[in-house]
Amino acid sequence: MYEDKIQIAKELADIAGRNIMRYFRKKDLFDTIETKGDTSPVTIADRTTEAAMREVIHSEFPNHGIVGEEYGIENPDAEYVWVLDPIDGTKSFITGSPLFGTLIALLHHNVPVVGIIDQPVLKERWLGVLDRHTLYNGKPCETRSCEALEKAALYSTGGRLMFKDASDADRFDKLNKKVSVSRFSADCYAYGLLSMGCIDVIAEANMKLYDYAALVPIVEGAGGAITDWEGKQLTRNSDGHVLAVGDKSMLNKVVEALR
Amino acid sequence: MYEDKIQIAKELADIAGRNIMRYFRKKDLFDTIETKGDTSPVTIADRTTEAAMREVIHSEFPNHGIVGEEYGIENPDAEYVWVLDPIDGTKSFITGSPLFGTLIALLHHNVPVVGIIDQPVLKERWLGVLDRHTLYNGKPCETRSCEALEKAALYSTGGRLMFKDASDADRFDKLNKKVSVSRFSADCYAYGLLSMGCIDVIAEANMKLYDYAALVPIVEGAGGAITDWEGKQLTRNSDGHVLAVGDKSMLNKVVEALR
Repeated sequence: MYEDKIQIAKELADIAGRNIMRYFRKKDLFDTIETKGDTSPVTIADRTTEAAMREVIHSEFPNHGIVGEEYGIENPDAEYVWVLDPIDGTKSFITGSPLFGTLIALLHHNVPVVGIIDQPVLKERWLGVLDRHTLYNGKPCETRSCEALEKAALYSTGGRLMFKDASDADRFDKLNKKVSVSRFSADCYAYGLLSMGCIDVIAEANMKLYDYAALVPIVEGAGGAITDWEGKQLTRNSDGHVLAVGDKSMLNKVVEALR
Repeated sequence: MYEDKIQIAKELADIAGRNIMRYFRKKDLFDTIETKGDTSPVTIADRTTEAAMREVIHSEFPNHGIVGEEYGIENPDAEYVWVLDPIDGTKSFITGSPLFGTLIALLHHNVPVVGIIDQPVLKERWLGVLDRHTLYNGKPCETRSCEALEKAALYSTGGRLMFKDASDADRFDKLNKKVSVSRFSADCYAYGLLSMGCIDVIAEANMKLYDYAALVPIVEGAGGAITDWEGKQLTRNSDGHVLAVGDKSMLNKVVEALR
């Protein structure tokens, strides 16, 4: 099932990676940086990458819907809807850091059934498919067990935009004080690290559908759980709070720590 | 001048990179993580890497001194002193992120005359030598100009250990509110990005000699400035506050913003 769509998802990631690498760390990129309404940056690389991916979807699956960060919504009530974030982590991208990625998801009846995180500098790709084992560069990967929150490694993109709501910032701080190690500013790359057993917990806020849809089959297919901050399943209408744990048995403890 | 020492510095970086990659993201690394007195983590990779580098220095330059993060000080009053941080960014390393590096510096009469940042996952190396142009993977690199603090990209490792002094945290926040983009948790990799013109400002605290000695010839040889938070030259006895700017003409504005 989904084989033809998985093949196209991989092609979309290939096209995105090639386009992004034309701009990475290039002087002519820096001149194209604009600030969007929510004060986040966008560049010619974000825009041309999403446009190139949309063109392939239009041609291969003209009846599918598309939700993308840069060019909005087309046919959102279709049976299949593609969800695209050409560069998740634009702030890392425009500052030369490889901790960004292209996010590609396919929703079937609103459920994310295919997800890709693609990192073109490091040539790393995570592929998740509903009810299958997640693949890292073509090989199965899995989350690790974690015996206690006090031993956990936590990642979060963090920053003023993500935790602009003071109560989110307070709740995150409570969790952050309990863990062993925390790192910031990794965007989607953190979910790749969690899915290959390098870190244990991620807590983020103000996430849009295109920020989290691809992550769902990747984290779940690697053995982890991804929910909102109450431990509830993510849906198309979730409130933007995202929590991921590598060890599912830790989920309740993390939800508790975030209260 | 220094040619034989530069050659050995490169060999030390090669040896460090090979050793570190034996452990990166490996399950047997995670079991070796210990917490040091300052609550920072250390692993078998940090220790074996520094030991391997020391062995080469003992053999090649038996009269030189060594200051290293893991094994302390030998012969500190020698004319030449090597300053080693086998893994700067151990928290990134143990969580699978490539934003860490090996730092190698050579002091001559207490002045850092050679500096290397080596990132073995991405195969990136910055080499700085006093009064020479900094090299990135063997090719000259340079910082960029920045017309205003409001347009600057800021990096800082940040976190509870770095800004445990509340007045440091407040001063950093003042600067952070003025810039366009900020990213965290990059350790020495940020100075590489600054030296190749991808970012504009770095402000850090609680830095030890082995955290900053290698950065001095790299940043200066790429056209930037690296000082303490008052704009004063870094010395062996600096107070641990480190500030780097790609565009030297911005130095006073950043010092002012940090007041």
